[in-house]
Amino acid sequence: MAKAPQFRVALLQLPAAQTGQDRLALAEQAVREAAAKCGPRTLLCVLPELFASAYFCQTMDPAGFALAEPIPGPTTQRLGQLCAELQVALVASLFECTAPGLYYNTAVVFDVDGSIAGKYQKSHIPCDPQYEEKFYFAPGDTGFAAFDTAVARVGVLICWDQWYPEAARLTAMQGAEIIVYPTAIGGIDSEPPSEWQRQREAWQTVQRGHAIANGVFVATVNRAGREPGPNGGIAFWGHSFCAGPQGEWLAQLGESPETAIVTCDRERAQEVRQWWPFWRDRRVDLFGPLTQRFGPVAK
Amino acid sequence: MAKAPQFRVALLQLPAAQTGQDRLALAEQAVREAAAKCGPRTLLCVLPELFASAYFCQTMDPAGFALAEPIPGPTTQRLGQLCAELQVALVASLFECTAPGLYYNTAVVFDVDGSIAGKYQKSHIPCDPQYEEKFYFAPGDTGFAAFDTAVARVGVLICWDQWYPEAARLTAMQGAEIIVYPTAIGGIDSEPPSEWQRQREAWQTVQRGHAIANGVFVATVNRAGREPGPNGGIAFWGHSFCAGPQGEWLAQLGESPETAIVTCDRERAQEVRQWWPFWRDRRVDLFGPLTQRFGPVAK
Repeated sequence: MAKAPQFRVALLQLPAAQTGQDRLALAEQAVREAAAKCGPRTLLCVLPELFASAYFCQTMDPAGFALAEPIPGPTTQRLGQLCAELQVALVASLFECTAPGLYYNTAVVFDVDGSIAGKYQKSHIPCDPQYEEKFYFAPGDTGFAAFDTAVARVGVLICWDQWYPEAARLTAMQGAEIIVYPTAIGGIDSEPPSEWQRQREAWQTVQRGHAIANGVFVATVNRAGREPGPNGGIAFWGHSFCAGPQGEWLAQLGESPETAIVTCDRERAQEVRQWWPFWRDRRVDLFGPLTQRFGPVAK
Repeated sequence: MAKAPQFRVALLQLPAAQTGQDRLALAEQAVREAAAKCGPRTLLCVLPELFASAYFCQTMDPAGFALAEPIPGPTTQRLGQLCAELQVALVASLFECTAPGLYYNTAVVFDVDGSIAGKYQKSHIPCDPQYEEKFYFAPGDTGFAAFDTAVARVGVLICWDQWYPEAARLTAMQGAEIIVYPTAIGGIDSEPPSEWQRQREAWQTVQRGHAIANGVFVATVNRAGREPGPNGGIAFWGHSFCAGPQGEWLAQLGESPETAIVTCDRERAQEVRQWWPFWRDRRVDLFGPLTQRFGPVAK
């Protein structure tokens, strides 16, 4: 069956977590509201990274592992039922346990019938003050992937992956029409607001660059607001956005919880790839050294 | 010897070519004026792509090969003397002939003593209406490289290379402190001005992304103004720019011929790489498929 000329993506910029909040119900409500504005089988919903809890990686605490669950598991069962009921596709970032002591930062792609189209384990794991992810997560073992859903062929990367052009390229090479980035990023108080702004702009720019280099849509979904933690916690800066295959802005949210629903035009994407046929000319014969950490150290 | 805390780069945005113009004299004048504003051994000058002539690739014409010359050759000899006299480093994009019938789009890096620090042959060759480069140039055989000069360790890529994150990455992996892109890009009249603007923004954004992903300075130098050719020729859009290692704007020129001299702060570059240590986490174990053209075709 020929693909529709357009599909839609909903950026569900959820609020920062509060104590005692039912995050799954919150997410469910956001998905329901977005679905109500769109026809069935046309909408891809994207939730922020690790949406089901507070961003527990602010500290290293073995108690945090209690939040993990298997995939499939109770959360994927509930989200699958939701997708089937509403006939929406969904990307949900979860804390996955695959074996005792083995945990991943994993995103699950649900198709519109509620089935799991695939899962992706975050490949690049950060370790920064208040982003202690190397304590919790093994580097992903799925590799880079894109998954067919009734809405679109969806590539998934997660947060820190967004700084790596290789990750976007390899995902686009799997035929992704859109790359989604569930994200948890914000400022910490030891850095001045001018630095937050530079970082935020860099964060958007590098991902718009992935859209351009690969001729794909990019949709990045962050949480919005402050969560407590050491040194004042993290002020998640929102600013979820969607860029078209020329890097053009299709949507950008502010610093508050909010949803954007964006139309992605397949003909436009096709045109952009034909006008500037970057894919044709990659010098794959020269790219072998990309599997090295670095070249010879400069003098 | 420890490196200076800063170095400078001059973006020499030359005018579009006119009939009978001595392009080499024009370039020499621009280099002299920039050098006069800076101390010796602190300045890297960058000229636009194929600055020594009109952009002859608008049409396929075997007569165009008469413009090519060997490296080293008469032009590199003259430019080397200039660099030695002024004690500036220089990146000059030339039309290189290495054997009868074998031509490259090549950039030469001169050190401040006038010697050739190295040359780079453009790896990715475009073939678009009025950019008939595949007719003239073999895909470069040098691979990606950075070269030590007294001013900085300089990575060089050329125009169409700027759309390829792999090229920037492999050049940065050679220890480049700055990646320079001699460029010849503009609009053609069959596309509306709104498209020119989108393209120009995409062109800058993807390169700012390379700066961010790799923690390097990026300096891109275009020519400015219209050159005749089929269908009204090409309106080279100028807008040469320099971005810092966070993708931040350090300079951006307009649509007229002009020079910008930019200070590049090594401490700032070091800080950026330490705050966001992207280099640490590359999943080189997963990057092997980057040497493929594409992955499995999507359904």
